[in-house]
Amino acid sequence: MIIQLESTITTDQKDQLAQQLEKIRYQTNEVNTQFGHYLIGIGKAEFDIRSIGNLPGIKDIHRVSDAYKLVSKKWKVEDTVIDLGDGVRIGTGHFAVMAGPCSIESEEQIASTIEHLQANGIKIMRGGVYKPRSSPYSFRGLGIDGLKMWYEQTREAGIKIITEVMMTEQIDAMIDYVDIFQVGARNAQNFNLLDALGKVDKPVLLKRGISGTVEELLQAAEYIFSNGNERIMLCERGIRSYESAYRNTMDLNAVAILKEKSHLPVIADPSHGIGVRRFVDKIALASVMAGADGVIVEVHQRPEKAFSDGQQTLSYKEAERLYSRLRQTYGLRESF
Amino acid sequence: MIIQLESTITTDQKDQLAQQLEKIRYQTNEVNTQFGHYLIGIGKAEFDIRSIGNLPGIKDIHRVSDAYKLVSKKWKVEDTVIDLGDGVRIGTGHFAVMAGPCSIESEEQIASTIEHLQANGIKIMRGGVYKPRSSPYSFRGLGIDGLKMWYEQTREAGIKIITEVMMTEQIDAMIDYVDIFQVGARNAQNFNLLDALGKVDKPVLLKRGISGTVEELLQAAEYIFSNGNERIMLCERGIRSYESAYRNTMDLNAVAILKEKSHLPVIADPSHGIGVRRFVDKIALASVMAGADGVIVEVHQRPEKAFSDGQQTLSYKEAERLYSRLRQTYGLRESF
Amino acid sequence: MIIQLESTITTDQKDQLAQQLEKIRYQTNEVNTQFGHYLIGIGKAEFDIRSIGNLPGIKDIHRVSDAYKLVSKKWKVEDTVIDLGDGVRIGTGHFAVMAGPCSIESEEQIASTIEHLQANGIKIMRGGVYKPRSSPYSFRGLGIDGLKMWYEQTREAGIKIITEVMMTEQIDAMIDYVDIFQVGARNAQNFNLLDALGKVDKPVLLKRGISGTVEELLQAAEYIFSNGNERIMLCERGIRSYESAYRNTMDLNAVAILKEKSHLPVIADPSHGIGVRRFVDKIALASVMAGADGVIVEVHQRPEKAFSDGQQTLSYKEAERLYSRLRQTYGLRESF
Amino acid sequence: MIIQLESTITTDQKDQLAQQLEKIRYQTNEVNTQFGHYLIGIGKAEFDIRSIGNLPGIKDIHRVSDAYKLVSKKWKVEDTVIDLGDGVRIGTGHFAVMAGPCSIESEEQIASTIEHLQANGIKIMRGGVYKPRSSPYSFRGLGIDGLKMWYEQTREAGIKIITEVMMTEQIDAMIDYVDIFQVGARNAQNFNLLDALGKVDKPVLLKRGISGTVEELLQAAEYIFSNGNERIMLCERGIRSYESAYRNTMDLNAVAILKEKSHLPVIADPSHGIGVRRFVDKIALASVMAGADGVIVEVHQRPEKAFSDGQQTLSYKEAERLYSRLRQTYGLRESF
Repeated sequence: MIIQLESTITTDQKDQLAQQLEKIRYQTNEVNTQFGHYLIGIGKAEFDIRSIGNLPGIKDIHRVSDAYKLVSKKWKVEDTVIDLGDGVRIGTGHFAVMAGPCSIESEEQIASTIEHLQANGIKIMRGGVYKPRSSPYSFRGLGIDGLKMWYEQTREAGIKIITEVMMTEQIDAMIDYVDIFQVGARNAQNFNLLDALGKVDKPVLLKRGISGTVEELLQAAEYIFSNGNERIMLCERGIRSYESAYRNTMDLNAVAILKEKSHLPVIADPSHGIGVRRFVDKIALASVMAGADGVIVEVHQRPEKAFSDGQQTLSYKEAERLYSRLRQTYGLRESF
Repeated sequence: MIIQLESTITTDQKDQLAQQLEKIRYQTNEVNTQFGHYLIGIGKAEFDIRSIGNLPGIKDIHRVSDAYKLVSKKWKVEDTVIDLGDGVRIGTGHFAVMAGPCSIESEEQIASTIEHLQANGIKIMRGGVYKPRSSPYSFRGLGIDGLKMWYEQTREAGIKIITEVMMTEQIDAMIDYVDIFQVGARNAQNFNLLDALGKVDKPVLLKRGISGTVEELLQAAEYIFSNGNERIMLCERGIRSYESAYRNTMDLNAVAILKEKSHLPVIADPSHGIGVRRFVDKIALASVMAGADGVIVEVHQRPEKAFSDGQQTLSYKEAERLYSRLRQTYGLRESF
Repeated sequence: MIIQLESTITTDQKDQLAQQLEKIRYQTNEVNTQFGHYLIGIGKAEFDIRSIGNLPGIKDIHRVSDAYKLVSKKWKVEDTVIDLGDGVRIGTGHFAVMAGPCSIESEEQIASTIEHLQANGIKIMRGGVYKPRSSPYSFRGLGIDGLKMWYEQTREAGIKIITEVMMTEQIDAMIDYVDIFQVGARNAQNFNLLDALGKVDKPVLLKRGISGTVEELLQAAEYIFSNGNERIMLCERGIRSYESAYRNTMDLNAVAILKEKSHLPVIADPSHGIGVRRFVDKIALASVMAGADGVIVEVHQRPEKAFSDGQQTLSYKEAERLYSRLRQTYGLRESF
Repeated sequence: MIIQLESTITTDQKDQLAQQLEKIRYQTNEVNTQFGHYLIGIGKAEFDIRSIGNLPGIKDIHRVSDAYKLVSKKWKVEDTVIDLGDGVRIGTGHFAVMAGPCSIESEEQIASTIEHLQANGIKIMRGGVYKPRSSPYSFRGLGIDGLKMWYEQTREAGIKIITEVMMTEQIDAMIDYVDIFQVGARNAQNFNLLDALGKVDKPVLLKRGISGTVEELLQAAEYIFSNGNERIMLCERGIRSYESAYRNTMDLNAVAILKEKSHLPVIADPSHGIGVRRFVDKIALASVMAGADGVIVEVHQRPEKAFSDGQQTLSYKEAERLYSRLRQTYGLRESF
């Protein structure tokens, strides 16, 4: 049960509400976000929802039977659109393309990428400065200095930054240079990190776990939301399966289902979703038809020289062709 | 190695070729199909391909390093288009829609479906008369009498029939009433059935196994081809995964990859691929963008009354909307 | 619901029973096996089980809520023990070892294997004469002639034969030479083959599908039982997973659970279950502790020369060590 | 390549070594642990290993082709035994049982558990004070105060504590009260946490990821080792599969393989590995036969009242029976 509270609710009114909920043995969690004030009630008793809904200080009340609550479409029918400023929006009606290299490598690489993005009207640049790597001996990214270097250039160019955060200690140092925090697949159930990202006012793109369920992804988003941050995107990036003909199994069923279950924007990551450069195009377009609100793709000036993920990274030329097709495909979908 | 033989090759020439291959210790398999005459050579020795290619009676010779040979695009670059007659073609450039109920239930149901298909310009009707069911106590289909009843109506209407065959003994009885034999996911590695379907001159739609690999699907097709039947379609119908938010995990990566690896048409089955009626539309359209040459969808006059698979079956109205969108999406894709 | 009928039940009494079941809208399936006569009732209505149980001609009546019925332990609490004659029994209290090569290759190989088995007190020899192979170009077994050759030698030696049957047409030719029909993982849902094996009076060892569920395995066994053959063994042989450190993922959870859900013997196949020769020993012993009633292992005079599966096949020396450990481990387990 | 350095190696000798490795373009990582001093060389060039091995200051040198190095058995053939003090050892020859509740709940619960452990000669108590929960609204543990309360009682009783750490910030506060840090399945690739645990001198039990590979588990251990901590245990706790008859798929293949690939102790977690109380016994015993050096099991005074995981938790009586059987089974295995 989600109870939306009036901003004007008084302490007395809250107490009264608490008493009512205690009577029916509902456990409560109070949530304050950038945009709202909620009381989440969890319990099993049947009761007349109006008996609570009519109390003073309450804006609205909804039953939500799912284990996740605030990220569910059952109480918020209108889809969430995330506004990054400067006219950059993500969500239903605002298709987003995020592109850039797997890893931030050098000033020159950043400059080249920005030029490519600007030439194609792309407003959000992806890139990693903290890289989760299977082996401790692999390149692990340029770190905070790389992020600052990157920020210098994007700020001038009016490009937004999305980059991965791996631990709570990094958040403070990163926050001024980042437009969207990305949570990677390996941290999809790093609950302390999710808690911490719920306490900042920056959008978060949350990737599905390596073999995460749709339900777990929504629960992970609930962690962020219930800590105070409503600005969340869900990202399908392929799941682990027995098939070895490609890197991951892109799960477009999940895209379609997430759009129904949640009001949050859903982003597809076809680069990781198939992991083979020459098929990224087809899977990106398929994602649009499955309902995605945007895609995040790996692009590099010279994919074969990239520090990481070169085998799934598009060249600028390939990416340009994709951007154009994405727009046409999204246009057709919206006409349906 | 695939050696295409001239139809005029003499016994002496074949012997000469056999001797050459024996020298390099290649095991050989002779294959005669509706359309060609081949010698498959399997071995490890390196040799100058021209030393064989220049022998008399040989049309062409190709190295194919994959475990599957004849279904590979490495020797046959031109995509296979299957002609069902009456202007009905399936393959690159000829998008196919196959629609109909999960199970054939009654004369009335057939008539109603045909009317629906004709109103929408659909030329191929799907339906099961032999149903593989997990439980021996479930409805197992109307059998050969159901097929004959069905055939009576489609023949008049000029509609083609695709239906599942489950065992070799059924082939002879079915063959006069069927336009495409379907091999179901549970029989994807029923090698005796595949052998037998290689010996008839009817197209076969081969479904990927419940957790079949792309490689296994191609090998299964190789069984049919190497027994003499080149008219094969590959069908992606979703794989088994840990996710329980839907019935199967539609693997559109496989669609993209199959189109690259093989010259055979690739059909998507979004009904089984997600297994939830209200998402079939999105997954069907996504399949087109992933490269499918057609879709096979479950449609029923009253899905909620269907004998089987009702939960993933479209109503006529939903199907009509889908057909129109499929055509537009395919049109856009072809314009790329 | 399972109704066990008296052998003396009259036609009138059956009619009376049928009427009662029709009243509560239960669909019925009559089953005659080597050992019993049953009526399976499937329906949803609640009713007093005594109202039926007290009718004349009825021996016993049990509710079985599972989708599978006759293979469930809910009606037959006493475990099934399969008697192959000559003192060879399989089931609770009678641990069985079945050993032999993947493929039957030659007279010499058979003789050598029999000598090895006899020296170790093993009474059941495994071997394939019909081999399901991913590629149509691989060795597919010696066929019926191989089986006859094999039978000549085992008959003299008093050794029982277990071998795979792949299609219904093979049953008649094989039946006189076979002690246990094996259904392979790829045919685990070949329902026509299961139907046919239900109509013969030979034990069947049924392998779990490549990614079959415990439920599907039990349903497959139900196919055989409900067609008339109660002598079935269930076999866990590893499932398909994302892990590539070995061939299949041996699922010993399934062994423990199958022993609880069903009265049928459960056999473990550690050779396929891990697929790596030097670990077969450990997984075999682990299977015993998980509750298996027996194991089936691949053994060959010279594993590195075997026609198939050499990488998971034990040498005689390794096998001897395993047999001894199996006996000790089973002894300890039985002492618990 | 792993180069073990003498503790007496001089700076000059290190420079000389570095120059040699630079010549063959090997990237190097210096590692200092509680027990040794190593140089990890990663590169592709072929070279005569003696040309480096003979340099002064070098104790030993080994080629290790795996992606993980220091945790591999290829350089350290002798198995690692972890000594917790007071005669408590874990590793080959020292079977360990760790038992206790899923969550630490109260003083009374702790006291009761300790009594149970002491009565059965169990020296290591498990319990969670920081609980990773799918839902933010679930009980998340008593935290550091719970740990201190727990420590008070175990110190007196001479019982060792193993408990989960979820984030680097918790390490300092926990370290004085913990004997083994546990890394949970959801943090199996939380590389920052692994780095941090490599910097403390406390043993770490590392669980395999929810769908982690054997390779990933070993790489995760490599993170800890290469940061300076050699005292690591690997833990198999079941993987995620398509099967829904139980909670996780216990992968005993992995236990057998880990014991071959690594010198680190391998612990089995049958409670999570099957997730159903009445089968924990069988899977625990099977784990022993597969090669496990110990088990970690969930035990509770009243499983049905446990705050979490009650469905897979043993009662004291069930646990007692298991302890005795574990000892007998381990005894038999060691006699082989």
